[in-house]
Amino acid sequence: MTVIDVHAHVTAPAELGNYRAGLLASRGGHTRSPLKVSDERIEGSLKAHLTEMTHHQIDLQLISPRPYTVMHWAKPEKIVRWYTEETNNLIARECQLHPNTFKGVCTLPQAPGVSPKFWVDELERCVKDLGFVGVQINPDPAEMGDDSTPAMGDEYWYPLYEKMVELNVPGLVHSAGCQSERLIFHLHFINEESIAIMSLLDSDVFEIFPSLKLVISHGGGAIPYQIGRFMAQWESHDERFDHALRKLYFDTCLYTKRSMELLLDTVGVDRCMFGTEVPGAGSHAHPDTGLPMDDLVPLIKSIDWLTDEDRYKIFEGNARSLYSLGAPVGAMA
Amino acid sequence: MTVIDVHAHVTAPAELGNYRAGLLASRGGHTRSPLKVSDERIEGSLKAHLTEMTHHQIDLQLISPRPYTVMHWAKPEKIVRWYTEETNNLIARECQLHPNTFKGVCTLPQAPGVSPKFWVDELERCVKDLGFVGVQINPDPAEMGDDSTPAMGDEYWYPLYEKMVELNVPGLVHSAGCQSERLIFHLHFINEESIAIMSLLDSDVFEIFPSLKLVISHGGGAIPYQIGRFMAQWESHDERFDHALRKLYFDTCLYTKRSMELLLDTVGVDRCMFGTEVPGAGSHAHPDTGLPMDDLVPLIKSIDWLTDEDRYKIFEGNARSLYSLGAPVGAMA
Repeated sequence: MTVIDVHAHVTAPAELGNYRAGLLASRGGHTRSPLKVSDERIEGSLKAHLTEMTHHQIDLQLISPRPYTVMHWAKPEKIVRWYTEETNNLIARECQLHPNTFKGVCTLPQAPGVSPKFWVDELERCVKDLGFVGVQINPDPAEMGDDSTPAMGDEYWYPLYEKMVELNVPGLVHSAGCQSERLIFHLHFINEESIAIMSLLDSDVFEIFPSLKLVISHGGGAIPYQIGRFMAQWESHDERFDHALRKLYFDTCLYTKRSMELLLDTVGVDRCMFGTEVPGAGSHAHPDTGLPMDDLVPLIKSIDWLTDEDRYKIFEGNARSLYSLGAPVGAMA
Repeated sequence: MTVIDVHAHVTAPAELGNYRAGLLASRGGHTRSPLKVSDERIEGSLKAHLTEMTHHQIDLQLISPRPYTVMHWAKPEKIVRWYTEETNNLIARECQLHPNTFKGVCTLPQAPGVSPKFWVDELERCVKDLGFVGVQINPDPAEMGDDSTPAMGDEYWYPLYEKMVELNVPGLVHSAGCQSERLIFHLHFINEESIAIMSLLDSDVFEIFPSLKLVISHGGGAIPYQIGRFMAQWESHDERFDHALRKLYFDTCLYTKRSMELLLDTVGVDRCMFGTEVPGAGSHAHPDTGLPMDDLVPLIKSIDWLTDEDRYKIFEGNARSLYSLGAPVGAMA
């Protein structure tokens, strides 16, 4: 079995952060220059990342930008675009250097207030020219949790959904930073996922785009846990809430067994894909065991009510059906 | 055993909503007049509520204002105060009419930007003059989820905490309406609870106010489900996140068994108190069984790993320790 991790972020050399800082300082006042970084520097930055993947028995990762760095809120818009393109290019280089280990998931130049019509060219470039297999969608590009961008059930998003369907690429719903002083971005992720789910399920999106594929990060925010509340509040809809929820896909980025079981049991094994963020939020020792909290292969294997077929679906099968990943490594042509 | 429901909201006759609409229309331009409503009208509005309590085996409810109606955001501030006082007075009348069935939990005139120093007089009035046993705290009085009011770990809230400790009354953390078009108030509740928990645990509040009692609504928003994420991100703190979480209390307003089990197991039976919102968000039929989703006594009784002592704590004991409820009904003097 190939263990496929659908939720991982790029580990980049310091040059990328420096490039970002330069753009924010100059506001794009200089001529655009590309990110300059050697293959050696990239390989150096990946060393610990690759070791951690091996320790965690992960064979293949779909890597996207580190969400908190994407700076969709920055002005002028052109620096959002420049940074987006350079980040995607860096991911493409890591995928070229490690073609059996990484596949690319792009970010888009989601400047708040700009229609997706004007960003989908970057999705097309990443899929057609760079071989990317997915897109990371930021539901709150202003990072304020405010109304400056409509929630994901709104028509505003249709041009993106249209292009995703045309190119047959899934989207990972994952917010970015958080400018509010009331919460950190780690929690903002969770809140935005809940908002995205409820908005999508209360919309016509899946009627208009029946083949749209959306993966909600971090086991779906609060919704699988709070499902009873929303089942009770769903009487005006034709479809039951718990059934509607299965229009979406979910990653397994939850770091405790009881929560993992709740997710798998609530939305169904066929809607869940192995995701870890390794190395990322969960890369810390559990205070009881001293073991890394994001070591999720053993955690999922320890759930005794899963069948071997269930485990295959979670670790590999569902991701292979959803994403265009080609044949398994080592498979006959 | 007396089943005590710590999370319920007042069922009010239409006169209260009409009074509210009048204030919003006149902006307080007329002389203040009290809410006029007869005992008969109040009893009439309570009929279905009391029947539902009986069907759900609930003996005693702590009733607070319906959160989505509290209009803390309204201008001028004086109408917030007028409406707050009249709502609390109505609750007091229901408690007087049914002293063995209802105890009061007040709202405060939390106009955004006004220091709690200027609202705690209403807490004092409700506890000392009206016999209330708790306070409902709205962490987002502007209903925008923005930075206009600091999160609950901030010093801004200290005058409230000081008064709560002085009067020995617990607070139910429960946001109100939601003005954002991206989400409905039912989800805004959940997101605000998560923000409140994380802000409180990342603050000095429980060092400064060690006897402060805070109950987080709806089983703690997203946090018990997402606990692994926050345990991993808590290394800079002296205390483990899962231990810190036990400084708070939680109600059981979750309407599925797996979520209820996750809550009880994650935060501990001693931190959980029976809460239903009956009649409220969960008062709808489960699509499989046709039974009301908020009928939580049988749900909790069906959790086979709970001991009789655990069940006593959840249904009665913990609430009796936390709130000043007097002796059990029928107990010897």
